[in-house]
Amino acid sequence: MTLADYFPILTWGRGYNSETFINDTIAAIIVTIMLIPQSLAYALLAGLPPQVGLYASILPLIAYSIFGTSRALAVGPVAIISLMTAVAAGKLAVQGSAEYLAIAIILALISGLMLLVMGLFKLGFIANFLSHPVISGFITASGILIAVSQIKHILGVTVSGHNLVDIGHALIVNIPNTNIPTLMIGIMSIGFLFWIRRQLKPLLIKIGVSERLAIIGTRTGPVITVAASIFAVLIFNLEGQGVKIVGNIPKGLPQIAVPGFDLALWISVIGSSLIIAIIGFVESVSVAQTLAAKKRQHIKPNQELIALGASNLASAFSGGYSVTGGFARSAVNFDAGAETPAAGGLTAIGIALATLFLTPLLYALPIAVLAATIIVAVMSLINIADIKQAWRYSKSDFAAMITTIIFTLSIGVEAGVMTGVILSLAMFLYRSSKPHYAIVGQVRDTEHFRDIKRYDVITSPRIITLRIDESLYFANARFLENMIYEHALKTKQIEHVILMCSAVNDIDLSAVESLEAINEKLRTANISFHLSEVKGPVMDKLKKSHLLHKLTGKVFLSQHQAIDALCINAFDIDIEYHL
Amino acid sequence: MTLADYFPILTWGRGYNSETFINDTIAAIIVTIMLIPQSLAYALLAGLPPQVGLYASILPLIAYSIFGTSRALAVGPVAIISLMTAVAAGKLAVQGSAEYLAIAIILALISGLMLLVMGLFKLGFIANFLSHPVISGFITASGILIAVSQIKHILGVTVSGHNLVDIGHALIVNIPNTNIPTLMIGIMSIGFLFWIRRQLKPLLIKIGVSERLAIIGTRTGPVITVAASIFAVLIFNLEGQGVKIVGNIPKGLPQIAVPGFDLALWISVIGSSLIIAIIGFVESVSVAQTLAAKKRQHIKPNQELIALGASNLASAFSGGYSVTGGFARSAVNFDAGAETPAAGGLTAIGIALATLFLTPLLYALPIAVLAATIIVAVMSLINIADIKQAWRYSKSDFAAMITTIIFTLSIGVEAGVMTGVILSLAMFLYRSSKPHYAIVGQVRDTEHFRDIKRYDVITSPRIITLRIDESLYFANARFLENMIYEHALKTKQIEHVILMCSAVNDIDLSAVESLEAINEKLRTANISFHLSEVKGPVMDKLKKSHLLHKLTGKVFLSQHQAIDALCINAFDIDIEYHL
Repeated sequence: MTLADYFPILTWGRGYNSETFINDTIAAIIVTIMLIPQSLAYALLAGLPPQVGLYASILPLIAYSIFGTSRALAVGPVAIISLMTAVAAGKLAVQGSAEYLAIAIILALISGLMLLVMGLFKLGFIANFLSHPVISGFITASGILIAVSQIKHILGVTVSGHNLVDIGHALIVNIPNTNIPTLMIGIMSIGFLFWIRRQLKPLLIKIGVSERLAIIGTRTGPVITVAASIFAVLIFNLEGQGVKIVGNIPKGLPQIAVPGFDLALWISVIGSSLIIAIIGFVESVSVAQTLAAKKRQHIKPNQELIALGASNLASAFSGGYSVTGGFARSAVNFDAGAETPAAGGLTAIGIALATLFLTPLLYALPIAVLAATIIVAVMSLINIADIKQAWRYSKSDFAAMITTIIFTLSIGVEAGVMTGVILSLAMFLYRSSKPHYAIVGQVRDTEHFRDIKRYDVITSPRIITLRIDESLYFANARFLENMIYEHALKTKQIEHVILMCSAVNDIDLSAVESLEAINEKLRTANISFHLSEVKGPVMDKLKKSHLLHKLTGKVFLSQHQAIDALCINAFDIDIEYHL
Repeated sequence: MTLADYFPILTWGRGYNSETFINDTIAAIIVTIMLIPQSLAYALLAGLPPQVGLYASILPLIAYSIFGTSRALAVGPVAIISLMTAVAAGKLAVQGSAEYLAIAIILALISGLMLLVMGLFKLGFIANFLSHPVISGFITASGILIAVSQIKHILGVTVSGHNLVDIGHALIVNIPNTNIPTLMIGIMSIGFLFWIRRQLKPLLIKIGVSERLAIIGTRTGPVITVAASIFAVLIFNLEGQGVKIVGNIPKGLPQIAVPGFDLALWISVIGSSLIIAIIGFVESVSVAQTLAAKKRQHIKPNQELIALGASNLASAFSGGYSVTGGFARSAVNFDAGAETPAAGGLTAIGIALATLFLTPLLYALPIAVLAATIIVAVMSLINIADIKQAWRYSKSDFAAMITTIIFTLSIGVEAGVMTGVILSLAMFLYRSSKPHYAIVGQVRDTEHFRDIKRYDVITSPRIITLRIDESLYFANARFLENMIYEHALKTKQIEHVILMCSAVNDIDLSAVESLEAINEKLRTANISFHLSEVKGPVMDKLKKSHLLHKLTGKVFLSQHQAIDALCINAFDIDIEYHL
C-alpha cells in the first residue's frame, strides 16, 4: 500500500486543470442548490435543529474529497440514516434536548470510528452479509416509515413513535387537531413536487432544453417550492395562523469541538452505531459503484470505508450528524458534470457560504414544505417490483425480504435489519445442512455423469455413485452419513459406493470423522468406499487425516476413471439403463 | 407415522420372551450396582442431595424404555449435565437451599419440554450445528473443570466457583484447611480406582475370567471402594475426625409432584435449559449410535429426542434432575448383554429397591470417595489426541476447539459452548464468503478441465474459464464480481468468459443480480459471458430470473461443449500450453 492508496486525492489531484475545475464548479453550484433544502429536511427527519443538517454538509464533503475513490459520490445527510439517528437517539433522550443532539453527534463519531477501523483492517466484507433481499426490503420499509412519519408535519400536529403501528395510531387520534393552512401548504407542495418530478422533464425537453439540463432542472426543482412557500408565509402571515416555520437558524460556520467521552453512553449506542455504519456504507458503495460503472471507473470498497469513516468523524467534530453517500445528490453531481471529488469540496464551500449569508432568508420556510420534500424524495425508495421478483425467484429470498419489511414497519429499523440478516444467514445454514444430492450415472457415449432422474444414463447394479452438492462440514456431516447408509445398504447387490466430490469445496474435521465412520460401516457390510473428482485443495486437506490410509476403496481423479476401473475389476456386464 | 414409531416398545415388545428377559435382568443387576454410587456422586457434583440422584435414575429409565430406539442406552445423571445444572442453578440460588433444588427440577422440566418439541417437530438437525471440534473441546474442558471442582471434597474444604480461575484460586487459599483423614481417604480411593481401571482387567483375564466378565468387573469396581470406605469410617470413627459423610438419605420412593409455574423463573433459565437439552441430546445420541453400529441396529434421532424429553419430564415430575444417556453405563449395559430397552426398566426397579432398603447402609459413605469416583470417571473425557488431530487437520477446526476449551475453562460451560458454536458458524460463513476459485484448462486428450496451476492443461488466450468452488449467495456475490472483473478485463485478447458452475449448488437472488451486473459490464467491454456445467436444480431457478434472456453468451451442458463451440466460432488455433 502506498500513500496514494490512502489519499486518492494525490492521484487525481496531479491531473487537475482549469477545465476540470470549471466542470467541478458548475456541478458544485447545482448540488449546493439541491443540498440546502435537503440538509434542512433530513435534519428535521432526524429530529435535529436545521443548522445541524447544514453542518453535516460542509466538513464531511471535504473529508470525502480527500479520501474517497468515487469521482461522483456526494456525501451528506440522507433519509434512511436520518431516520436511524432519530430512532437511536430517541431511545435515550427527548427530541430537542441538548442530550439528544449530543447523542446524534456521538453516533456519527462511533460510526465513523467503526468505518475507519473496518477500512484499515479490510473488514469491508462484513457488509456482504447484508443480502440483496434484506437491503431492498429494508429500504422499501424505511421509505414507507419515513413518509408516514412526515405526515404529522403536513397535518401540523405532534406525534411520536418509531414504527408504523405507533405513528399510525397517533396520527388518527390527532386528525381533529389538524392545522388547515399547514395542510394546504403541505398538500400543494407535495402536488407541485410530484408534478416537477413527473412532468417537468418532458416539458423542458419539449421547449428545447437538453435532456441533461432537464434532469438537473427537475432535481433542483424543490428550491422553487421552498422560495414560493417562504413568500406565501410572509405575504399571508401564515405564522400567525399556526403554520410552523423553520425560524432562526444560527448564522455562521460550525464550531470545531471534540465530543465528550462517556463510556456508559458509548456502550449504549454501540449497536445502533454499527448498524448505521454498515447501512450507510452499503448505501454509499452501491451508489458509487453504479455511477463508476457508467464511466468504467473503479471503486475501492476498503478505501471507501476509510473515506466514509473520515467524513463521519469530520461531521462529529463540527457539530454534524451521521452522513453517507446519497443516491439523488450523487446522480445530480454526476449529471451536472462533476469530474473529480473536488466537486464535493466546492459544494462544501457553497454550503458554508449558505450558513454565513443565507440562513436569514430561510426563517419563514414552513416545516410542512420540508416534510413534503422528504415524502416525495422517499417515494423512490419504495420498490414493489423487487418484492415481486423475489417472490418469483425463490421463496427463501422472498421470506428474508418480507420479514425485513414486516419487522422494520412493525418494530423498527434496527429490529428489521437485524432480523433480516439473522434470518438470511440461518436459512443459508439450514440449506447447507440438508444439501441436494443425486445418484448419478454415465451419459451414453460421453465421459459425463449426471443425475439419473434428469438424464438418460447408464449405471451398474453393483456400483452406486452419489454426488453431494455441498461442502462437507459439521452441519451436514450426519446428513451425509444417513444419506449414504440409506442408499448403499438398500440392496445386497451393491459392492462399491463412490462419493463424487465435484461439488465438494471443503471437508472439515467433523465431516472427515463422518467419512471415516461411513468407511467403517460399509467395510462391515463388505462394501468398498471410493471418492472421485476430489478437488486439489480438498485433497491436500484429506492427506493430513487418517481417512486415506483407512479407505477400503480408492480416490479417483475422475468419475469416468472410477467407473472404468471398478467395472473391469467387477467383470461387470449387467448394466442398467435409466431414462 | 404409526403409533409404533412413537412407541418403539410396541415393536420390540412383541418379540419379548423369557430368554430376552433373563439377559435383560442380568444386565440390569450389573448396571444397578454401578449406578448407585454414580447417582450419588453426580448429585453431589450437581450440588443436590444424594437422593435426587437416585430419583433421577428411576422413572426416567422407565420413560426411556417406552420411547427409546436404542437397545442398549442407559439414561440417568451424567457428569457434564450435572456440572451444567450446578452452574445454571448456582447463578440463581445458593447450593443446599430449597430454591436451588426447585431450579434443578425446573431445568429438567424445561429441557424435557424442549427435547419433546424438537422431536415432535423433527428439529433434531439443530444439534448438527455443534461441530465435532466444539463438542470434543467442550467435553475435554468440562472433564478438567469437573475434576478440579472435586478436589475440594478430597481436601475436605469449602470452595465455590464455576471456572478454573475461581476454583483454582479458592483451592490454593484453602490448602491450609485440609482435613488429613479426608485427604488420605480421597487419595487412596483415587489410587485404588485407577488401579481397578488400569490393572484389574488384565489381572482378571490372567486368572481365567472371560474378557466380557473382566470388563464388567472393572466397571463395577467402584462398589468395592464404596463398601471399603464405609467400613473404614465406621471402624475408625472417621466422622469424628472431620471426614464428611453422605449422612441420612431419606428412605422410600420419590414423590410424584408437578413443579410449580413461575414465568420469571422459567424465562431466566430458558437459555441454560436449551444448552442442557442440546448437549444432553448430542451426548446421548452419539453413545446410542456407537453401540447400535456394533450390532447393526438403527437409531432414530428424532424419536430419541422424544424419548429423552419424556425421560427428563419423568425426572422433573419425580423430584429428579436433568438426565441423558451416559457412555460408561450404556457400555456396561451393552457388555452385560442387555437386549432390549426393558433392561433400563429393570434397572429402574433395582434403583427403586435401593431407595427403599439400601440407603441406611450408605449413611457412612465419605463424600471424598464419591468425589474420587467422579475424578477417575471424568479422566476419560479429557482427549488430548483430538486436540492434536484438529491442529494437524485444519487451523480453523483447531481454532474452534481451542476457543471452546479456553472459554469453558476461563468463563464457564455455557459461555464455552456458545462461543464455540458461534465461532465455528462464523468461520464457515467467512470461508464461504471468500471461496476458492481456479482458472481451468483442458487436460490433454481428455474432456476434463482442471486448475491451470495444478495440471498440464491447454487454454486459449481468447477464452478464460473460471471455476468457482462455492454456491453463489449474498455473502460472496460481490467477491464473484470482483474476481471475474479482475481476470476478464486483464488482457484485451479475451473475448469469452465462461463461468464453470460444477461446484455451484445454489444461486440466490443477490447472486443473480451480481451475474446480471457482470453480464452488463462484460457486454460494454465486448466480452461474451457464458455459463457451463450448471446443475439441474440451479438451472431451474435461473429460468425464473431475467439473467438467461439478457445473457450475451450461452449456457453449456458441459465445459467441453463450451470450448468446442467457442473455439470453432472464434476460428481459434492459438492455444497456449500450461504445465
